[in-house]
Amino acid sequence: MSEQLSKRIFAELESLVLIDPHTHINPHSAASTTLADIMGYHYYTELAHSAGLAKELIEEPGIDPKEKVGRLVTQLDDLDNTIQLSWLLDICSEFFDFQEDAITESNWEKLYDTAAEKMAQPDWEQQVLKQSGLEQVFLTNDFDDPLEGFDTKLYIPCLRTDDLVFHLVKSETRERLAKATQMDIGCAKTLRDAIGELFAHFTAKGARACAISLPPDFSPVAVTADQVDSTVRSLFAGNELTCEESKTVSQFVFWTLAEYCAVHRLPFDLMIGVNRRVYEAGVFQGQDLYDKRTSLILYKELFNAFPNVTFPVSVLTSTSNQELVSYSWIFPNVVINGHWWYSNTPAFIHFDCKSRLEAVPKTKQVGYYSDMYKLEFALPKFRMYRRVLANVLASDFVIGRNWSEQRAIDLGKLVLRGNVETIFGC
Amino acid sequence: MSEQLSKRIFAELESLVLIDPHTHINPHSAASTTLADIMGYHYYTELAHSAGLAKELIEEPGIDPKEKVGRLVTQLDDLDNTIQLSWLLDICSEFFDFQEDAITESNWEKLYDTAAEKMAQPDWEQQVLKQSGLEQVFLTNDFDDPLEGFDTKLYIPCLRTDDLVFHLVKSETRERLAKATQMDIGCAKTLRDAIGELFAHFTAKGARACAISLPPDFSPVAVTADQVDSTVRSLFAGNELTCEESKTVSQFVFWTLAEYCAVHRLPFDLMIGVNRRVYEAGVFQGQDLYDKRTSLILYKELFNAFPNVTFPVSVLTSTSNQELVSYSWIFPNVVINGHWWYSNTPAFIHFDCKSRLEAVPKTKQVGYYSDMYKLEFALPKFRMYRRVLANVLASDFVIGRNWSEQRAIDLGKLVLRGNVETIFGC
Amino acid sequence: MSEQLSKRIFAELESLVLIDPHTHINPHSAASTTLADIMGYHYYTELAHSAGLAKELIEEPGIDPKEKVGRLVTQLDDLDNTIQLSWLLDICSEFFDFQEDAITESNWEKLYDTAAEKMAQPDWEQQVLKQSGLEQVFLTNDFDDPLEGFDTKLYIPCLRTDDLVFHLVKSETRERLAKATQMDIGCAKTLRDAIGELFAHFTAKGARACAISLPPDFSPVAVTADQVDSTVRSLFAGNELTCEESKTVSQFVFWTLAEYCAVHRLPFDLMIGVNRRVYEAGVFQGQDLYDKRTSLILYKELFNAFPNVTFPVSVLTSTSNQELVSYSWIFPNVVINGHWWYSNTPAFIHFDCKSRLEAVPKTKQVGYYSDMYKLEFALPKFRMYRRVLANVLASDFVIGRNWSEQRAIDLGKLVLRGNVETIFGC
Repeated sequence: MSEQLSKRIFAELESLVLIDPHTHINPHSAASTTLADIMGYHYYTELAHSAGLAKELIEEPGIDPKEKVGRLVTQLDDLDNTIQLSWLLDICSEFFDFQEDAITESNWEKLYDTAAEKMAQPDWEQQVLKQSGLEQVFLTNDFDDPLEGFDTKLYIPCLRTDDLVFHLVKSETRERLAKATQMDIGCAKTLRDAIGELFAHFTAKGARACAISLPPDFSPVAVTADQVDSTVRSLFAGNELTCEESKTVSQFVFWTLAEYCAVHRLPFDLMIGVNRRVYEAGVFQGQDLYDKRTSLILYKELFNAFPNVTFPVSVLTSTSNQELVSYSWIFPNVVINGHWWYSNTPAFIHFDCKSRLEAVPKTKQVGYYSDMYKLEFALPKFRMYRRVLANVLASDFVIGRNWSEQRAIDLGKLVLRGNVETIFGC
Repeated sequence: MSEQLSKRIFAELESLVLIDPHTHINPHSAASTTLADIMGYHYYTELAHSAGLAKELIEEPGIDPKEKVGRLVTQLDDLDNTIQLSWLLDICSEFFDFQEDAITESNWEKLYDTAAEKMAQPDWEQQVLKQSGLEQVFLTNDFDDPLEGFDTKLYIPCLRTDDLVFHLVKSETRERLAKATQMDIGCAKTLRDAIGELFAHFTAKGARACAISLPPDFSPVAVTADQVDSTVRSLFAGNELTCEESKTVSQFVFWTLAEYCAVHRLPFDLMIGVNRRVYEAGVFQGQDLYDKRTSLILYKELFNAFPNVTFPVSVLTSTSNQELVSYSWIFPNVVINGHWWYSNTPAFIHFDCKSRLEAVPKTKQVGYYSDMYKLEFALPKFRMYRRVLANVLASDFVIGRNWSEQRAIDLGKLVLRGNVETIFGC
Repeated sequence: MSEQLSKRIFAELESLVLIDPHTHINPHSAASTTLADIMGYHYYTELAHSAGLAKELIEEPGIDPKEKVGRLVTQLDDLDNTIQLSWLLDICSEFFDFQEDAITESNWEKLYDTAAEKMAQPDWEQQVLKQSGLEQVFLTNDFDDPLEGFDTKLYIPCLRTDDLVFHLVKSETRERLAKATQMDIGCAKTLRDAIGELFAHFTAKGARACAISLPPDFSPVAVTADQVDSTVRSLFAGNELTCEESKTVSQFVFWTLAEYCAVHRLPFDLMIGVNRRVYEAGVFQGQDLYDKRTSLILYKELFNAFPNVTFPVSVLTSTSNQELVSYSWIFPNVVINGHWWYSNTPAFIHFDCKSRLEAVPKTKQVGYYSDMYKLEFALPKFRMYRRVLANVLASDFVIGRNWSEQRAIDLGKLVLRGNVETIFGC
């Protein structure tokens, strides 16, 4: 009974057209052009490398896309148990009429060619959007992105701020900021004004969120322009900062971002917990890990200081999930956002989803975002989530709490789409 | 099959009359007088506030109870997914003949009036006790509670010691202690004697436990009267203490409590992990959160020093559950106590319950306590627990390990009631 | 349907003959001679003690084995819920024709005698190996073990290095090292050479792994012979070291072990997270617990420095499981190894197993090891794991992902045996 019920709920959830509230889509090249775009996704390159494929083979400069796919295919058998690989097979079956159980050395070339042919169709991007049920796609834009040349009603700009907070000590970042804002920055006040310019630019273009990923030991505290002014002057004069000074500048910029989010009523997406470049010999984007010893208590001052800023929070590990549940249960301005990265597999999603749906106001939960780099991934990733969600709705709500099927489906649709609209103002 | 089995076990567990080993009941006003007493429970005020209701509306001074309920009702739809709201509906259906799926702006007034009428019956308290299957109810008494004017065989006194350990630096606490003990306290020895007086008073009144809630960074260590004497003298002379001195006094008082627990053979309930006032603009009792980075290793010295004191331990988060399982598996004097606060929802209870029942001696587990402020909450909260417990007994013991149904039911009854009797000496 | 499916998969997994990649078997006395060998396993003595049996009764010097069993039996009823006790009953039913539900004061003597009779058969060891489906058994050998007098094709030597890393400050350890290597050790270089001798000896005898258990705060970093030379000279001259010096020597020895693992292409088993002697009044081997606040980030430098050393990693707690999943997903040289100690119960295994199978290349996962001290324990422990594994394969792969039964069984066999062969080179 429960299995049939879950399937019916899943079918209803599958029919829903979505807004994807966090992706890394390049709006100028949103869909893939070859299978290498899809199999070059870091999930596959890092897993293939982890299973034994040399980085040099995967990332050989100037390598032909087809050759690259061929090399990755040799390692796929070792990954065929992973949910990540099931996304790939789902894509191939859904978009490229691929009916086999596995991509092997004997069938991949035909698949590659079929895919290339499909992707060459002029309306491929529209086909993917339609087949995936995607109405709007949030982007992750560099702070100096001109946000031009694409439809900002379809591809929603979001201001990504990692560079500003953590890499302002690099002269390149400071130069990009000066160029983007056309401002002469030399002190804390002008730095703040320049950041204000970015917000003005982004919100004028319809940006719906400011976003940042944060290391596990980051602790935001209020730093005033006065406190940091001499350090900022020194930095923009080209001097090296000490670790401590650099940290203070990071905190000042971060706090300034929160202030502008308040001014512009922009949600501030916090993605908490990643350490960059832990495995430095890893493939591109396959080098980051974490220290699970982090806590949302580090954000106490921030959440208290900005009651009017909504913070959609993602956590990297399932061991942080209960904190996220509790903090969003207590703080009106903390909302739950998706299942991020290393927690984005069914076992973790299942447990995290159950605990969220039963304890946090239903209006404060964004169920899922795809985090994708290419459009083709929304379909299998959201499908994975919808399957878990349907199971939880069936077992915990319809069976466990005697809800009607329709009521459970409505709850599913709220966390899948309704809350994205209300929280991000779509 | 499994569903029917689980229902049969649940029915057996439901028939059991209970002793509730931890509540915040006021024995002079144990049951509710209006629906505002029930909906004023911090779970509802904090969730309604989290979902958007202003604190000023909820906590307006002098507000009429009916008006308060009406305001909370406007926010309930946003919480209808939560297990906390399901307790409320369970109460209304069980005690007030409420048959609707939801409490709405169009049906709440009738419900309010029906409830008020029922609650006005002179034997309402007895009705609730009987319908809930409650035989004894443990209290949480301030250290200066006279413990008079109520039936201490029904409402069991417990000495709550947070104020003594963490707030002795407040003159108000010291004055309350002096008044309660009629002693002239001015040094470590007289402080210890005064605490001894409290134990004498409480045990004479039939107290069954000493209890305290502790922040995640608290680390009990032995502090002798000699070591702390000058600091205590300074404190009682009215001087301000440094942070470090204040911490030492806390540790001294805590250690002294453990010593008296040993003398009086009183279990010492430790509720580990809460940070107070994290969200200071929150509603009453809706301001506390935590830092999950805590460990029972902080209690190593304590557990070793007092082999004859039983420590029923509650942990705030499910990420601490495995430590609790392991520590009670190894230390004879550490027993597992319930599912506390932010872990008191089915997803966490389910996982924690499974891992406890399969790895720790069955005699060392107190399954559940309600933590309630008003009597009406025992029924839905214990029911939620009994449902989870029945599921675990059915799947893991009857199906998974071929136990007879009766044997599984007996295990359930042991953790629900038998162990409360043996551990607390009821 | 799902239950039948799971049973069919379980039956297939049960038929597989195994290599047990981590045990504490003494190859000169691998099987038990009385039930006291079995019930003297620390899981039973520590649980009986935890439930109330005095250590003095359990560990009375010179106690007769039968008397010891009789004493433990008095406490068994309190443990009958535990999975650990189910292993014992499984052993008794499988090997000693015991058909009762429980070992009680009225039936244990007959059981004891039957067991003694069986164990007295000259081929008992072979019977157990055969009935348990064991082809090879990895050992845990002291560094000065001569590795003689047993069949090293059946009982595979492994170099255990806790003493070298953490107890070199004890003169006894240094004397054992000098004696085992017949070397005159007095400086960092000769210490390194001596360790090299141990590797030469062990690998000549067919050792398949170097292994160590590590406390939660251990952080391996590169320490060169030059940096530590004067401290090593001081130590071997008989001087006391400071804490800091002692720690540096530990790090030097640890790093040296990793270097020799690289030279000899020997996997380096890391068992991360245990604090020794937390409960000092506990029974033998029943004194260790942990601090869950640890992270694999502490091993960042190690994993990066030795890309050619395979590190099979075990973690003590399920709260570390996600890190293990993520680190083995990213680092080619980090593989997942079993379910260790306090995580070796079905609730934790189930969750950990699901999350591993769905996210990490299938070739990088060693499903299980028994950690046993006596041969009879492989059967019930592996059976517990195989039951969980069969459930996960049935629900997540056959039902959840439409795999054929055979494909799911093949995955199970790979993590149960195939990967042991490829990772340890059996």
